[in-house]
Amino acid sequence: MTPSLTVVPVEPGQSRYAALAAALRARVVAGEWPPGSALPAEQTLAAEHGVALGTLRRALELLADRGLIERIHGRGTFVRAGMTGGTMMRFFRFGEGTGEVPASRIVSRQVLVAPAEVARRLGLARGDTALRLQRVRSLSGQPCVYEEIWLPLALFADLAEGEAAAWSDLLYPMFAERCGVHVHRAVDEIAFGALTAAQGRHLALPAGHPCALVTRSAYDLAGHCVEVRYTRGDAHAFHYTVTIT
Amino acid sequence: MTPSLTVVPVEPGQSRYAALAAALRARVVAGEWPPGSALPAEQTLAAEHGVALGTLRRALELLADRGLIERIHGRGTFVRAGMTGGTMMRFFRFGEGTGEVPASRIVSRQVLVAPAEVARRLGLARGDTALRLQRVRSLSGQPCVYEEIWLPLALFADLAEGEAAAWSDLLYPMFAERCGVHVHRAVDEIAFGALTAAQGRHLALPAGHPCALVTRSAYDLAGHCVEVRYTRGDAHAFHYTVTIT
Repeated sequence: MTPSLTVVPVEPGQSRYAALAAALRARVVAGEWPPGSALPAEQTLAAEHGVALGTLRRALELLADRGLIERIHGRGTFVRAGMTGGTMMRFFRFGEGTGEVPASRIVSRQVLVAPAEVARRLGLARGDTALRLQRVRSLSGQPCVYEEIWLPLALFADLAEGEAAAWSDLLYPMFAERCGVHVHRAVDEIAFGALTAAQGRHLALPAGHPCALVTRSAYDLAGHCVEVRYTRGDAHAFHYTVTIT
Repeated sequence: MTPSLTVVPVEPGQSRYAALAAALRARVVAGEWPPGSALPAEQTLAAEHGVALGTLRRALELLADRGLIERIHGRGTFVRAGMTGGTMMRFFRFGEGTGEVPASRIVSRQVLVAPAEVARRLGLARGDTALRLQRVRSLSGQPCVYEEIWLPLALFADLAEGEAAAWSDLLYPMFAERCGVHVHRAVDEIAFGALTAAQGRHLALPAGHPCALVTRSAYDLAGHCVEVRYTRGDAHAFHYTVTIT
């Protein structure tokens, strides 16, 4: 029999359902319910935590809003297997838009002292090193976006070794498989800038050419930032649609 | 007593709940429940339309996703009074970000033949005229964005006359009050471009200066496009964050 799990508000003024959400998240992070698996029935969870069904439902709503779980009508509640729809290519229109997965080429892989902004986002101390990847993504042989990707060594040491040329074109499934890191949420900040000469060379564009710059912070199940990424592409190919209600 | 309202699928293959959602939307559009008012209880609505409670809830979910209604936990379901958070200024960072409402100045108001793209979006025939506004929005006296706004005369004839200088800085409350048009949904397409000399003059920027261009289509309760807007601002002030899960 499962012992009753107490819900203790971790911050003064925190609501009961927010405290419950934190407790449920901790169970997911601890691996009790792996990504893709179903959570127990609502009645069971409410009984385990000694809360009313309404409180449990509000906690689940909160976790669904944060992308940790997914509620599928008539089927139940599931731990999400990972983020969907997060491709950087959604910010650009190149060529025909055939849905082709862009080819990925790692052009460099180095362990470097993380710049201040990267260290701040990753929660590293000043002077800490991190793994930096530079990669170019191409469609039909044409370079489309150039990326600088910063990863904390504590989680991604495995990627610092071995043959990067053999990596998959999609990084997140590889992060999950090789490093056990599940990206569940990403915050993409869009700005406009100009390419340096070095950045331009990767994209076959001249220095000073206008670019869109997307700065990503990606988060794991526990809400820790596990990746900082700078993606640059031709500003004239940038296109993004936002619907508001 | 309310007569039973039949749910007739309007398209072959349309699901029962989608047909119900269309029927409920029609009741909102007809003014049965004005913006801001509460819908009847779920049991009542389900009985009126002769559907199961589960079907009704899926229909309400669909209408909430489309921004027509709002479900407030523990309070009920309400017809939304209008779109929130749709300001074009959210795409830019000017100055301190004090939350100041930018001043609006209408620099021209003309009835013109709608360009092809505008006519297509507004559902006008080729050669039809529309009301075109040009306006500049400023913060602390500095011009920030320049807008070209196209409105169908059938809905907005009232705005073609009278003193535009006296208009509110916020257009949508005025659209509702003077023309009975409630904007409930907007689709904003972001791209980067360069200012023409004429556009640049409104923003005190030179011809060719890089700009962010936001093309908006705004929709009313019934889902008709009621406004097409082109908003341009300095690309270097553009900043927008997207969170994905």
